[in-house]
Amino acid sequence: MRTIEWKDGVVITIDQTKLPMKEEHVEIKTCSEMADAIKTMKIRGAPVIGVAAAYGLALTAYHSRAQTTENLLVEIESCAELLRKTRPTAVNLFWAIGRVLNKAKQVHGNLENMVNAVVDEAQRMANEDVETNRKIGENGAKLIEDGDGILTHCNAGCLATVDYGTALAVIRVAFEQGKHVRVFATETRPLLQGARLTAFELKRDKIPVTLITDNMVGYVMSKKLVSKVIVGADRIVKDAIINKIGTFTVAVVAYEHSTPFYVAAPKSTFDLTRLSKDVVIEERSPEEVIFCGKQRIAPKGINVLNPAFDITPLKYVSGIICETGILSSAEFKKLAA
Amino acid sequence: MRTIEWKDGVVITIDQTKLPMKEEHVEIKTCSEMADAIKTMKIRGAPVIGVAAAYGLALTAYHSRAQTTENLLVEIESCAELLRKTRPTAVNLFWAIGRVLNKAKQVHGNLENMVNAVVDEAQRMANEDVETNRKIGENGAKLIEDGDGILTHCNAGCLATVDYGTALAVIRVAFEQGKHVRVFATETRPLLQGARLTAFELKRDKIPVTLITDNMVGYVMSKKLVSKVIVGADRIVKDAIINKIGTFTVAVVAYEHSTPFYVAAPKSTFDLTRLSKDVVIEERSPEEVIFCGKQRIAPKGINVLNPAFDITPLKYVSGIICETGILSSAEFKKLAA
Repeated sequence: MRTIEWKDGVVITIDQTKLPMKEEHVEIKTCSEMADAIKTMKIRGAPVIGVAAAYGLALTAYHSRAQTTENLLVEIESCAELLRKTRPTAVNLFWAIGRVLNKAKQVHGNLENMVNAVVDEAQRMANEDVETNRKIGENGAKLIEDGDGILTHCNAGCLATVDYGTALAVIRVAFEQGKHVRVFATETRPLLQGARLTAFELKRDKIPVTLITDNMVGYVMSKKLVSKVIVGADRIVKDAIINKIGTFTVAVVAYEHSTPFYVAAPKSTFDLTRLSKDVVIEERSPEEVIFCGKQRIAPKGINVLNPAFDITPLKYVSGIICETGILSSAEFKKLAA
Repeated sequence: MRTIEWKDGVVITIDQTKLPMKEEHVEIKTCSEMADAIKTMKIRGAPVIGVAAAYGLALTAYHSRAQTTENLLVEIESCAELLRKTRPTAVNLFWAIGRVLNKAKQVHGNLENMVNAVVDEAQRMANEDVETNRKIGENGAKLIEDGDGILTHCNAGCLATVDYGTALAVIRVAFEQGKHVRVFATETRPLLQGARLTAFELKRDKIPVTLITDNMVGYVMSKKLVSKVIVGADRIVKDAIINKIGTFTVAVVAYEHSTPFYVAAPKSTFDLTRLSKDVVIEERSPEEVIFCGKQRIAPKGINVLNPAFDITPLKYVSGIICETGILSSAEFKKLAA
């Protein structure tokens, strides 16, 4: 099954906060339920939250009782505003909302046409995401050599996308091609997407995976167990990659060990109008750090930081794997300029 | 109260696995109970496990029914063997056992003298540890400037020693001197000594502390929140510092940011006869990674790594703060040669 699916006015997804203990599917029927699912990270991962937002608008259009296209557009725009407020950092969210809104605005007069335009555009985006990821996988797999040890951080797998993944698509295609790989998945505190999701989906697909804590990155690199790093991205700006907290630490350690560090992401993640200093880095609840699952791990009243993302300057990036090919940092800079 | 105390043939300590949720004192009456407490990390931290091992031998001597010094020595040596098997990496354990055994061997004929020699030597080592740490604190505090942001990893505090700490002694003395400092404590997966112990003892002493996950090290350094790193050590060999897993990752990130990286440790941690490649790095149970406290966080049957320590080459070390002063890497190398 895809991570997210549309079925007759209902969106069906897997509650990622419950994995790997429980595979629980949830039905989302309104845009406000969708906003909540994104905010609480039942749905997470830059590419899939873009599609989820598009589906959120589709739910609004599909169930609307508006009598005119003008009124429907007002409803859709108000839902778009709600969705934009869920998570500030991943650009795919804003890109997807903009794309659906544009489609809606192109329809004039015919209500049914507008509803269909919105739902169809969301469906198209879901399908495109799968195709895009397959291409990212094929492009990136050319970099993978037999025997590679590949470190990945957080989850840039099928659960972060509609299907297949970005960083994990590269690994999946290489594995399908018969290359022997060993993946090191960092657990990715505080929400443990590496331990819960990456370990889960690679193990299910029988791709050899070893789980490590985030602070073992230096250890595995010093032991020469890692020949490449591949991560996803939430936003790629003119000067940097913005991705899950911890990515920058991994990048620095890889750089010091002369280990290539690749970013796999669709072009919808590119935000070539901004510099990293202009991007809001989401700060999430302190409770995520103070607790590990339901277990309190720190004294009451302790002060914590909880930025959800960090910034990796292009200096540390060996290449960006996207659906059209692999861009070196220099090529990306040229594109951005 | 000290972390560990001797009272009439009983050793009283705090169960560090239960902190900060519960402050539970345990009474240890036999050497085998002591070995178990070290192995399960009820007692942890290189300096204090040295003293704990000495007390373990003292318990054996104190409660022995041996009728001759020869027989008592056999008993003590067999307990020493048990203690040596608890944890392979921290050198203080072996140093402390050797020191007590030497004292015992110097006594001939008089059983009571031998018992007293062993118990007194263990007591002396506990007292010396406190004095040594105070001196480490005073020496290191000279490096601390008003307004410093200090990152520390794991727990090198009073709980890792008999009292006062090593890395945290430096911070304590600077704080007592009225310098304003802000400490960043990494949580230190898998066993969370940073979140559970460092956050606990600094908060109790009203020293400003902010808890971060291990993967936020790059983030706080890139934001220029950290002006110095101070960590402890489990063993300092000719070419490297061996300390809690994650130390090397912190050191590399500090190096890349030109942030001074200091190691605070007593000279009993020096092992100038060995290179890092000759030291056994303890590999602990996979369960420590698969669980966070009592909470399972990864799929069943997942492969994991769990080295308890890593190796930081001297290249990354700005200085070693010990009881006699601060050694630069170059001075340390000279000493080791």
